[in-house]
Amino acid sequence: MKDPVSVLKDYIRFPSVSADTAFHDGMTGAREFVSDLLAGAGFSVETVETPLHPIILATRGGDPSWPHVVIYGHYDVQPPDPLDLWKSPPFEPEVRDGRLYGRGAADNKGPLLVHLSAVLRLLEEQPELPLRITFLVEGEEEIGSPSFQPFLEKYRDRLRADFVFLSDTGSPREDQIVITTGLRGILTFEIEITGPRGDLHSGIHGGAILNPIQAMADLCASLHDPDGRVNVLGFYDDVLDVEPWEREQLAMLGGDEKAYAEFLGVSGFHTPPGFSPFEAVRFQPTLEFNGIGGGYQGEGSKTIIPARAFAKISCRLVPNQTPEKIADLVMKTIRERTPAGVKLDIKPGHGGSPYLVVPPRRPNTPAGQNPVLARAFDAAEAAITRSFGKPPLYLREGGSVPIIAKLQSVLGLDSLMIGLFLPEDNLHAPNESFHLGVMERGIEVSKTVLEGIAAR
Amino acid sequence: MKDPVSVLKDYIRFPSVSADTAFHDGMTGAREFVSDLLAGAGFSVETVETPLHPIILATRGGDPSWPHVVIYGHYDVQPPDPLDLWKSPPFEPEVRDGRLYGRGAADNKGPLLVHLSAVLRLLEEQPELPLRITFLVEGEEEIGSPSFQPFLEKYRDRLRADFVFLSDTGSPREDQIVITTGLRGILTFEIEITGPRGDLHSGIHGGAILNPIQAMADLCASLHDPDGRVNVLGFYDDVLDVEPWEREQLAMLGGDEKAYAEFLGVSGFHTPPGFSPFEAVRFQPTLEFNGIGGGYQGEGSKTIIPARAFAKISCRLVPNQTPEKIADLVMKTIRERTPAGVKLDIKPGHGGSPYLVVPPRRPNTPAGQNPVLARAFDAAEAAITRSFGKPPLYLREGGSVPIIAKLQSVLGLDSLMIGLFLPEDNLHAPNESFHLGVMERGIEVSKTVLEGIAAR
Repeated sequence: MKDPVSVLKDYIRFPSVSADTAFHDGMTGAREFVSDLLAGAGFSVETVETPLHPIILATRGGDPSWPHVVIYGHYDVQPPDPLDLWKSPPFEPEVRDGRLYGRGAADNKGPLLVHLSAVLRLLEEQPELPLRITFLVEGEEEIGSPSFQPFLEKYRDRLRADFVFLSDTGSPREDQIVITTGLRGILTFEIEITGPRGDLHSGIHGGAILNPIQAMADLCASLHDPDGRVNVLGFYDDVLDVEPWEREQLAMLGGDEKAYAEFLGVSGFHTPPGFSPFEAVRFQPTLEFNGIGGGYQGEGSKTIIPARAFAKISCRLVPNQTPEKIADLVMKTIRERTPAGVKLDIKPGHGGSPYLVVPPRRPNTPAGQNPVLARAFDAAEAAITRSFGKPPLYLREGGSVPIIAKLQSVLGLDSLMIGLFLPEDNLHAPNESFHLGVMERGIEVSKTVLEGIAAR
Repeated sequence: MKDPVSVLKDYIRFPSVSADTAFHDGMTGAREFVSDLLAGAGFSVETVETPLHPIILATRGGDPSWPHVVIYGHYDVQPPDPLDLWKSPPFEPEVRDGRLYGRGAADNKGPLLVHLSAVLRLLEEQPELPLRITFLVEGEEEIGSPSFQPFLEKYRDRLRADFVFLSDTGSPREDQIVITTGLRGILTFEIEITGPRGDLHSGIHGGAILNPIQAMADLCASLHDPDGRVNVLGFYDDVLDVEPWEREQLAMLGGDEKAYAEFLGVSGFHTPPGFSPFEAVRFQPTLEFNGIGGGYQGEGSKTIIPARAFAKISCRLVPNQTPEKIADLVMKTIRERTPAGVKLDIKPGHGGSPYLVVPPRRPNTPAGQNPVLARAFDAAEAAITRSFGKPPLYLREGGSVPIIAKLQSVLGLDSLMIGLFLPEDNLHAPNESFHLGVMERGIEVSKTVLEGIAAR
């Protein structure tokens, strides 16, 4: 097999920006590149059409009694703008100081090739490896994976497996790999409050009616307690207690609050009682205002009572909250608290479930956890410890990757997520890069995991 | 003298839009038109240059012992847009159904000509009338009168007078003239709350810090009590009690709350306790949100914690509040209530004092009220009763006309304001018009007032 770094360089040269139809050829090129690699390794490769960008579904079958792992990745990348901030062109990969620079190097071309290279090496060594492997590589991850759930539902039978193996999350340092055990869910919506028929003169009519901005401020202010908790009855009812082992893992990660505050540019934190900022972003749900607007937006002043005001709101959810129940609770609360004299409209947005997987032998490990998944966790821990010099930390992340929860809800599959991004990788930003040392060690880890889960 | 209606038509033909330099010739034409009328009546006319549009200062001198009235008006008009909504072109005056249509017909060309015509008629009848008259006609009223205060200060000695006589306010119906006795003051400012260095990912960082929109909502919500009063310590300290006679006058005006709510398009009112909506807009100060913004403003959702949020706020002030003291109180309160973890910036705007004049023989008429002003009020009441068939009502207005308070604060002059606009006049809107019956009766009233205040 070719050197993985030069394979990654060739892969990056396809500008596979899913958000922009101008990159159609880049999408096709990247897709065919991955398909050819998989076909070369003996996979049966299928290109599944979707309304937008096709999904690569590549299988290595075998005896139905063999374990079956689904390896997930995506071949699409973020747009490269702003181009003038790149030191080398985004689609002309270049190695500098042990890093490969280029759009998609870390998200997700490098990590996908980590697993693909591991598979290639392993199958070269053990062509008869008793393991079924399905690669599932989509082209819409950077635009919200709109075709993913219908695809899962349609291909449910082909995707009956033991677990999903992927690397599309991060680790804090080169020597401290994280296995991501949880993701927050999400719920978005917009509220609009309408008062008078149109903007009114604040001199002639000011004092007679409730200002829609004031109603909106009152409503928004009511949604949190002063201590930082969300003030919606029942909001926390389904929140799982954080296990002591999870807090311990996070404590081992460390984290300097002063440095974090400086990084964010804030003078202090504001967390629910009992949670450090590092804990709060992983273990607690939120109700966050993403945007607010109403009335005059220009320079200087315009003395009106505006006709309306809006707020864009999103909640991050944690296990076992569901977007459906939280939507009901929050919207009911908002409706109840809307004062007389103004009209409320709620525009629902999208939702995604939170996700949690528990490694083996923890107090909260589910009875009857899939033994192949348990073996994969154990193999990963051992391999990471050996290759990176330290055992992995098992941490939840604050972000939301709705496809992981969908793999669980539609297919019943948990995921082993080994974080291969580093903070310096500049994901979604100019000068994205992938650490080549992490890449090589990642291949070793992936190979060990796959070897470890093969039938015995 | 020519028929006032045809004079007004000629005057309207000059498109004197002060806000747009394209109308420079119209401004010059209107100014010269008024100057010529005044010169023709024997006034000594001066064009006082300002940084923008000159002020017409025209005097009819006389014995220093004679009473001296300043008649105020403005020769500039609002822009005529949107042009396609006019039934006849805005600067081609046309009489339809007893109204003269054209931009500026009511604001303020018609009412100024009411007083000018009254002066012409009166001086024709009584060339030796023992009354000093100064016309003060500015060209920047529609753009906030930026040159007015410096002008007053510079010409203070020339403007020593007994009172100011003007018509630049409204009356509710053709048969019910209002003498405006009060105007609210104004105070504008903008606040900005800044949290993190830039917009943050609400998944990765959500839960750690105070969202600037939330801080803004909390702050804005804190500025009112649930009962509708402004929740700023000391805000109401200087508010004069409303005199029973003022409430009685307003009660005589009547006013249908249901019709008012329908007109505004609201399902209910929100006023401070003890005040009807009609009272609240005249007698109570406000703190109003004119605009709010922050975070994502586009379609759909963007899950950020925004770096900042702003609110544009204005207060309407009533006697004896001052913009200086209220600014201090409100800004101190806002500073004190800004939570830890975010930064506050306050951008001051502009301020204008409230104004109040009390007609003679009221319980709260100031001792030593200027006797010429008192005679003018009496003459106006008698003349309005005779010409319009009903005594005038003495009412405060909710709007702010800062020049009236400036005439009082700089020159010590009170104003007799006879409302000649009607609600149907469409001020600042397409199809502005002036009621020709009101015009003719207004001339009679003005003439009687001027006659009534001349030396005896």
